[in-house]
Amino acid sequence: MRQNKLLLTTLRESPGDAEAMSHQLMLRAGFIRQLAAGVYTYLPLGRRVLRKVEQIVREEMDLAHAQEILMPTLQPTELWKESGRYDVYGPELMRLYDRHDREFALGPTHEEVITTLVHNEINSYRKLPITLYQIQTKFRDERRPRYGLLRGREFLMKDAYSFDVDWNGLDQSYWSMFKAYQRIFARCGINFRAVEADAGAIGGEGETHEFMALADIGEDTIAACTSCDYAANLEKAEVGIRSEKNEENIKLDQIAKLYTPNIRTIDELVESLQILPSEIMKTVMFIVDNQVVAVVVRGDHEINEIKVLNYLGAKNITIANSEALEGISSIAVGFIGPYGLDLPVLVDHSVVQMNSGIAGANEFDYHYQNLNPQRDINLEHVGDFRNVTEQDSCPRCSEGIINLHSGIEIGHVFKLGTKYSDKLGAKFLDSSGIAQTMIMGCYGIGVSRVLSAIVEQNHDENGIHWPLSLAPFHVHLLPISVKDDLQIQVANELYERLISHGIEVLMDDRDERAGVKFKDSDLIGIPYRIIIGKDAGEGNIEFVNRRSQAKEMMHIQDVVEHVSVLLKNSH
Amino acid sequence: MRQNKLLLTTLRESPGDAEAMSHQLMLRAGFIRQLAAGVYTYLPLGRRVLRKVEQIVREEMDLAHAQEILMPTLQPTELWKESGRYDVYGPELMRLYDRHDREFALGPTHEEVITTLVHNEINSYRKLPITLYQIQTKFRDERRPRYGLLRGREFLMKDAYSFDVDWNGLDQSYWSMFKAYQRIFARCGINFRAVEADAGAIGGEGETHEFMALADIGEDTIAACTSCDYAANLEKAEVGIRSEKNEENIKLDQIAKLYTPNIRTIDELVESLQILPSEIMKTVMFIVDNQVVAVVVRGDHEINEIKVLNYLGAKNITIANSEALEGISSIAVGFIGPYGLDLPVLVDHSVVQMNSGIAGANEFDYHYQNLNPQRDINLEHVGDFRNVTEQDSCPRCSEGIINLHSGIEIGHVFKLGTKYSDKLGAKFLDSSGIAQTMIMGCYGIGVSRVLSAIVEQNHDENGIHWPLSLAPFHVHLLPISVKDDLQIQVANELYERLISHGIEVLMDDRDERAGVKFKDSDLIGIPYRIIIGKDAGEGNIEFVNRRSQAKEMMHIQDVVEHVSVLLKNSH
Repeated sequence: MRQNKLLLTTLRESPGDAEAMSHQLMLRAGFIRQLAAGVYTYLPLGRRVLRKVEQIVREEMDLAHAQEILMPTLQPTELWKESGRYDVYGPELMRLYDRHDREFALGPTHEEVITTLVHNEINSYRKLPITLYQIQTKFRDERRPRYGLLRGREFLMKDAYSFDVDWNGLDQSYWSMFKAYQRIFARCGINFRAVEADAGAIGGEGETHEFMALADIGEDTIAACTSCDYAANLEKAEVGIRSEKNEENIKLDQIAKLYTPNIRTIDELVESLQILPSEIMKTVMFIVDNQVVAVVVRGDHEINEIKVLNYLGAKNITIANSEALEGISSIAVGFIGPYGLDLPVLVDHSVVQMNSGIAGANEFDYHYQNLNPQRDINLEHVGDFRNVTEQDSCPRCSEGIINLHSGIEIGHVFKLGTKYSDKLGAKFLDSSGIAQTMIMGCYGIGVSRVLSAIVEQNHDENGIHWPLSLAPFHVHLLPISVKDDLQIQVANELYERLISHGIEVLMDDRDERAGVKFKDSDLIGIPYRIIIGKDAGEGNIEFVNRRSQAKEMMHIQDVVEHVSVLLKNSH
Repeated sequence: MRQNKLLLTTLRESPGDAEAMSHQLMLRAGFIRQLAAGVYTYLPLGRRVLRKVEQIVREEMDLAHAQEILMPTLQPTELWKESGRYDVYGPELMRLYDRHDREFALGPTHEEVITTLVHNEINSYRKLPITLYQIQTKFRDERRPRYGLLRGREFLMKDAYSFDVDWNGLDQSYWSMFKAYQRIFARCGINFRAVEADAGAIGGEGETHEFMALADIGEDTIAACTSCDYAANLEKAEVGIRSEKNEENIKLDQIAKLYTPNIRTIDELVESLQILPSEIMKTVMFIVDNQVVAVVVRGDHEINEIKVLNYLGAKNITIANSEALEGISSIAVGFIGPYGLDLPVLVDHSVVQMNSGIAGANEFDYHYQNLNPQRDINLEHVGDFRNVTEQDSCPRCSEGIINLHSGIEIGHVFKLGTKYSDKLGAKFLDSSGIAQTMIMGCYGIGVSRVLSAIVEQNHDENGIHWPLSLAPFHVHLLPISVKDDLQIQVANELYERLISHGIEVLMDDRDERAGVKFKDSDLIGIPYRIIIGKDAGEGNIEFVNRRSQAKEMMHIQDVVEHVSVLLKNSH
């Protein structure tokens, strides 16, 4: 491709509202343009990268024996009512009426459509297991679209769905997809972790993993062990428990009541009493499935609501506001504590490990000190109710500790079980002729989001470093002066030779100053740059590695072989 | 691919509402399934064919130096208001509101978005000409979706747009796309004609051609010369004129008034007077841009409203109803004729050529006979105002006559000129630094519609004949009995060998009777079939050509070479 005629406008400054580096760089380097909030056009460079991701995904899906189909964007909302998601999904589901006033949703995901399809097409165990996938544009009306392709309202996804005769079958389908995802992200050159996630939060009954690209801009938090390969998202990550017992032979002080007028928050307590947050027992009241419940964690910890839900086998949880607590006599809002509370009290392990702590006295303007869990708190409900923190022990191995990372969710595999097949009637006849419900899994990759993840992980202050597997072109060919006939002749010959060897080349044949060309080339981030300058006559060119900035002089006869070897080694 | 696990259910009967043969066959052979009216899922076989069409389109677009981009489906309707199409497009434009009550359209076409994009990205003649394309799902809320993929509401299109500095440039861009379209449809194996179409009907100022696949189900009529390569759609097709003069030395009879009570239509006249329709002068009243106009054609001809519009340089035309004609004293509805009509009268050439004719007398219950055009009709406005008919002379060559064909529109190229660039401000600075408006062309291919066209043209009573270039697989491998270990072993070995040579194979490894396998194979329509039966032990197989039904026995060692040659020869 010759740059002179390529639809490619680079920008020196990034638009003011682009916060994420990947968003800024893809705008500046001419990969994408915004049409509306969260809605983007892919310019030629962006479209090329997107197609490379699509191709890798397609190859790995085919290798995993998934079958490609293409389902419609327009989905009759009757299906969403049948599955029960019509109301649950909320305003993220974009809806419209056709000319006959029939309501359609723009597919944000295709569980309803695929389950109905398979229900109609497959009725025997002989046709199972089967995994179907598509690469398709999805729509989700995000409340706050941002970060460019990271959180868009129209985006490209690969979604796959597996159908099995039983849970063992699902297990195989699941891990087959899991491994395909590992290969896909590895081939894309992404630094990622597969992390355990919580199924309950999505309403499933089975296992689930998220594939996270590590990046500071990421909106998800990952807890990963420094020693073993344990990794989970913050919702799911278990806390490694050292010992339930506090140290023995410690003399216990008597409980004492402190006058703490208007001191309600952890911060106020810390400041007023000159103590550490870890010396406080923090008690928060929740409404869990219409029941009021107290949860106690250490003052420096965060309560994990998903863990509370899972412990209680409940579905809904909200923090109890003052009105909800009005009828309960033992409660003084702002001064709640576990001592003497006439309610279910869920106590986190780390609280049990405290020798003594400070907590609300359930009386306005008073706190207790010297509370000892074993002596003073009802320990009927002890469990893991908090988020892990940096330096927590690993729940799996004995050596490691937990580090927290930010991550971008780029993939998700999920054991759905019978959630949709039950509601939409996807049954099959087993070998005895008995009708059984299909066991489903679903698997998603944010194809367009992968671009953002790659750029977040691969850039410097001057621009992008595309991995070779996804780069819009392999080589950026820069004749320094297009007014120099010799340079142009040499560049044209090399251009044709590289292309005839299957190497993708962008040639900057613009009549621009060398500085402009170098700046644009850094910004665009093609992995290898070949500079044709004054030594063109002697057949000498400069070969530059965009990422390492390593430069070497090379004879023009050796260039094609050199690039071919680099390409071959990257596979 | 092994058929046992492929998502492929064939149907013995076609659903009752499938009228078109392509629709029936693609449903029965398991290529597509309907989700809602005009909204289809592509099953694995259908998706494979669709991807092959996409690939051919992409290769030819790239060869023509068009650059691939991807624009959003969601288009802010502000853009449609700017271009003036928001109201014009009508209910075919699907509209919705996002959570912030901002209105969006689901793109049925992308002139507004691309013109705005190019307006923002390109401001100099140096970056022109440029042609951009995308392959993307489009939405059009058809009043009456039908014929499967032929007239859907959600469908795949390739749309391209060219931007030039002047009309000469557009001419080059246009013919470059035209030639690419010829190559694309030829590679797809379609029997097509590129026909002249009328630009005025779409509001453009330039040339336009439609690419028509010849097929009886087609909703368009094409007039093509039997001798030269003239072809045009019915709206546009010119009538070849022999001579304006009627025969000389014919004795002219006097005009006579006939009492024809309640005889109003051509059919009634023909029956009552025992004459031919071609002896009648048919006069129809129109409102053209608020003016009442009479158009006279021969009784066996159809008036072409587009030609009337173009002759008058007008924009809107409707047939005048009785109310619209009430004020005009000289008119008696049902008995209108050209003689003595005090209005503009447009007379078709074929009327002028009549020696004598019968027409309404502009008086209730009366007609005239012996009307002679030269003597009795105001011939101020003589022109081509009718549709061509079979047997008309060719307007281009002296030998040919016109034949009419039905066609499916599969592509369209169109010189837009400045229609959108004017309204959306797409200007560039020319080499003198003066702002000029870009000259645009637009070019569309109905990618999913190509599938219907192919099947309409390539089938017999038993199923589809896919052309090799688009077939879901090249070879259908049929071991007759999967219970015969030897057959299965031979089939498996051949399967692997074919695949290792890049040949796409579907193996019917189902435990079904031979008759079922043959029936399904005929229905699906893979070009070559290899049958492995009782002679497998001796290494003999049967090789069948689906289209010709030609069968030959072949040694298994020769099969791979044979298929490879067939594949190579097809390119």
